Amino acid sequence: MKKEILLTGDRPTGKLHIGHYIGSLKNRVKLQDQYNSFIMIADQQALTDNARNPEKIRNSITEVALDYLSVGIDPSKVNIFIQSQIPELNELTMHYLNIVTVSRLKRNPTVKNEIKEKNFEESLPTGFLIYPVSQTADITAFKATVVPAGEDQIPMIEQAREIVRSFNSIYKKEVLLEPNVLLPEKGLGRLPGIDGKAKMSKSLGNAIYLSDSPDIIKNKVMSMYTDPNHIRIEDPGNVENNTVFSYLDAFCLDKLHLEEMKEHYRRGGLGDVKVKKYLNDILQAELEPIRNKRNYYEQHLDFVFEVLKRGSQNARLVAAETLSEVREAIGINYF
Amino acid sequence: MKKEILLTGDRPTGKLHIGHYIGSLKNRVKLQDQYNSFIMIADQQALTDNARNPEKIRNSITEVALDYLSVGIDPSKVNIFIQSQIPELNELTMHYLNIVTVSRLKRNPTVKNEIKEKNFEESLPTGFLIYPVSQTADITAFKATVVPAGEDQIPMIEQAREIVRSFNSIYKKEVLLEPNVLLPEKGLGRLPGIDGKAKMSKSLGNAIYLSDSPDIIKNKVMSMYTDPNHIRIEDPGNVENNTVFSYLDAFCLDKLHLEEMKEHYRRGGLGDVKVKKYLNDILQAELEPIRNKRNYYEQHLDFVFEVLKRGSQNARLVAAETLSEVREAIGINYF
Repeated sequence: MKKEILLTGDRPTGKLHIGHYIGSLKNRVKLQDQYNSFIMIADQQALTDNARNPEKIRNSITEVALDYLSVGIDPSKVNIFIQSQIPELNELTMHYLNIVTVSRLKRNPTVKNEIKEKNFEESLPTGFLIYPVSQTADITAFKATVVPAGEDQIPMIEQAREIVRSFNSIYKKEVLLEPNVLLPEKGLGRLPGIDGKAKMSKSLGNAIYLSDSPDIIKNKVMSMYTDPNHIRIEDPGNVENNTVFSYLDAFCLDKLHLEEMKEHYRRGGLGDVKVKKYLNDILQAELEPIRNKRNYYEQHLDFVFEVLKRGSQNARLVAAETLSEVREAIGINYF
Repeated sequence: MKKEILLTGDRPTGKLHIGHYIGSLKNRVKLQDQYNSFIMIADQQALTDNARNPEKIRNSITEVALDYLSVGIDPSKVNIFIQSQIPELNELTMHYLNIVTVSRLKRNPTVKNEIKEKNFEESLPTGFLIYPVSQTADITAFKATVVPAGEDQIPMIEQAREIVRSFNSIYKKEVLLEPNVLLPEKGLGRLPGIDGKAKMSKSLGNAIYLSDSPDIIKNKVMSMYTDPNHIRIEDPGNVENNTVFSYLDAFCLDKLHLEEMKEHYRRGGLGDVKVKKYLNDILQAELEPIRNKRNYYEQHLDFVFEVLKRGSQNARLVAAETLSEVREAIGINYF
């Protein structure tokens, strides 16, 4: 049976952190045998709100690729490619823009939130407003039907499905396929920042990176936000909204022992330091082989570039085939 | 000395009429020795508000090409090409969209008017809102510095100049050139419709086409709007806002005789029928060789397609060179 096609990726705006690892990277490795996977380093999408800072995007591409390889994404199974190396995506986007209204784009709740977060208001770059359409081009170019993403991305996939339906109905051909979102397993959604804030991010300085050294990891763990009312060891503590326990939920495999610790913490007598040390041990064990692989690939950048180059070449062939069907459907294949 | 580069073109939404002829085609023929001209059949731009009617666009491409050749645009001097055959234009547009804000696009007076005219409101296709950016891609791809256009197009060129300046300043390279508008000679602006309405258009049914037969031309001239108060021959008449005289201004070469006729019409004693017959003679004389050439090329469509194919190939080479400079400036030329 032919494998279903999966598309996913990241904006290269910096190194990846363990939030990415828990929220998506780990799952990609698990899915790489099950699906025909395309993993995109979305440099053009990153440029939509970083047009004045292209160096950041350019430099982050290698970092993201290193992170991919070091977590075990296997380039012999998966096409890792760079968005800007697939020019066909631009033309697909332009064709789709003619069948999406401006008011529909402005209603997209994901984009609406991001515009607010980024304080764009009057300075909203047009490229940013239309990035859901560009994302639809990314998904449909590879005929991906599976798009792993968080709950907050559901409106993006809905937008893509609408465009697919419009296109197929207007041009009277079933050229494009409707994608489905593949939500993360329960409990493996977004990891909070080490300060307890909902989101781990570079700008907030509250992330643990896959490339962090053992000392840095330890320092970050020991400074983690816990229950602010758990002052003395003997005090009863809260494990909900307690970052250390959120991380243990994500990383600790010995669920029985974790439940016992939670019980102990709740009734009092278990100190934060002890729990943090336990988390640190688990994190160090999980991140050490990743960091080692990362160091290895850093010494073999030629191989990394070759992976990106070959992946982009393969991806381009697939996208070109879809574009050719799209052009035929619209009827602009004159010669 | 190297010739300056000129870019112009038409949306293929139907056959061209004598309004196009007076307003631009005739001038293009005059300019084809002076400039290195690129003439674009803007099918993708036409699709921005005709996405649901691609057949109309497709069928009009040949008509427009026939009109071009029949008025004397010489494909050995000029690159006639089809926009959709230059995929590089899509990528240029996407890069420019990141440096133009949505509010800037909405302020463009030309687009604002067109949105009103077309009653788009809530149903404005995104592709239509952004077409000034796509037009900037068209102009800059060929490094055109001369863009013949009417007064109403000045804001479009201003938009293009802004994008060029932003791009060069952000990416610290003088990659793109600022275009200048080349306005029509005084008196050779827009020809009114035969019903006296300001604009000649297919939907208003008030146009004389370059491909119209002698009988149809004569009928259209004889039904033309004149001075509604000039009822009897001996009545004094108005030559202003009198379509027949507007056409004579555009087509009659014997300016002395035309001035005498105007004088006679003003003081009374010169009938509409006589003036219309005079205009008809002039129009028939001007349009007959055009129609003959058109008939010839209709019998040689292979040649026409070859012109379009070759022109598109040449245009693509130039656009690809510019795109490569643009990619280098942004820094996305990784491999």
